[in-house]
Amino acid sequence: MPGQYLAAMYTYQYPRPALTVDCVIFGLGDESLKVLLIQRAHDPFAGRWAFPGGFVDMDEPTETAARRELWEETGIEDMFMEQLYTFSAVDRDPRERVVSVAYFALVKLANYKVTPGSDAQRAEWFPVSQLPPLAFDHDEIFKVALARLKGKVRYQPIGFELLPEKFTLGQLQRMYELILGRELDKRNFRKKILGMGLLLPLPERQKGVSHRAATLYQFDRAKYKALEASGFMFEI
Amino acid sequence: MPGQYLAAMYTYQYPRPALTVDCVIFGLGDESLKVLLIQRAHDPFAGRWAFPGGFVDMDEPTETAARRELWEETGIEDMFMEQLYTFSAVDRDPRERVVSVAYFALVKLANYKVTPGSDAQRAEWFPVSQLPPLAFDHDEIFKVALARLKGKVRYQPIGFELLPEKFTLGQLQRMYELILGRELDKRNFRKKILGMGLLLPLPERQKGVSHRAATLYQFDRAKYKALEASGFMFEI
Repeated sequence: MPGQYLAAMYTYQYPRPALTVDCVIFGLGDESLKVLLIQRAHDPFAGRWAFPGGFVDMDEPTETAARRELWEETGIEDMFMEQLYTFSAVDRDPRERVVSVAYFALVKLANYKVTPGSDAQRAEWFPVSQLPPLAFDHDEIFKVALARLKGKVRYQPIGFELLPEKFTLGQLQRMYELILGRELDKRNFRKKILGMGLLLPLPERQKGVSHRAATLYQFDRAKYKALEASGFMFEI
Repeated sequence: MPGQYLAAMYTYQYPRPALTVDCVIFGLGDESLKVLLIQRAHDPFAGRWAFPGGFVDMDEPTETAARRELWEETGIEDMFMEQLYTFSAVDRDPRERVVSVAYFALVKLANYKVTPGSDAQRAEWFPVSQLPPLAFDHDEIFKVALARLKGKVRYQPIGFELLPEKFTLGQLQRMYELILGRELDKRNFRKKILGMGLLLPLPERQKGVSHRAATLYQFDRAKYKALEASGFMFEI
């Protein structure tokens, strides 16, 4: 009967916060770094944009919950996801005490087509420099996620999944600039990145450019893995 | 009446995991890196060693809960604590679903005298190389914490709180060796650490040593703060 349901009741001796997950998915596009938001269909904050997320089921670890909610609300899946931070301010949800475990990922925008799910009115990529006001404490979650991402790319090689197999130093630099949100000095960048010894220059050259075709490179995966295992660090 | 109590009952429409905190407190001693454990008084795992921790109250953020539990169980407080990771494997507690937010800190062992609280039979510092079997998934929590600590000291200057105001390069190297759990090449270490430009050599020399008294240094705090703000990184 519409409007009627049998409420399952779970009783505990002490009160418990609700436990949720939130997903901060950064998408690297050609022109900007974006982040995936859903528009909330329900109160609180109906109509407001927020990170995909929701309640953790009893039979799933939090990362599984994050992947499930992301898929349900945006239709995307299959990415390397890392735990970001757990947000637990007492008043972060106006309804009741909710503690949220946030995850984050960086993907190539073109590879992930979003399709809003039943829980979300809309799901869209927003440039990180032009975010709408967010629901709950998601502005803070976003700040923490962006700072972590920027910190991470400075001491961990990235690019395998984000660049074409063969790329120019200009493309690589542009990727770093989009993520870091600032221009980098070309000479310093090239010196540092080539000094890492992780790039293999290829005999072929960039195609379809009017003049001075640039050298193409690819990552030396074997060397990268070895350096990664040894705790390699570098600075951009 | 003994054995009788009025159970407060909290009822929810959906089941909720219990939420706890755990504290991994590393203590740097003269001879080893240690970690603070409490011996559990109650089941599950009565008699087993574990990290200090317990349930999160409804009116406190998780870090407040971590500080409260640490103080209640070991009598220590006032330290810089960071969130480590949230552990949520479905079967990590044999009683029921419990999700735990872990925190970690690195302190100078000599500054923190532990006094077991009512919830813990004993509280003691153990060398990280000689840990007893731990309760719950605390072996895994320990591994994650130690890896994080080692990663952290490699790209973030430490020492202000852990070394005397004036110290020798030998003392500084020893500190890194105890935390990293391996010997460092003396020449490389000195070159890197002096290359950072963070150490001020003092006119005075080490006292009470038989011959060849070493130069004493102190941290250049102003420069350290400036470098820290600019996102400075280095590699040991």
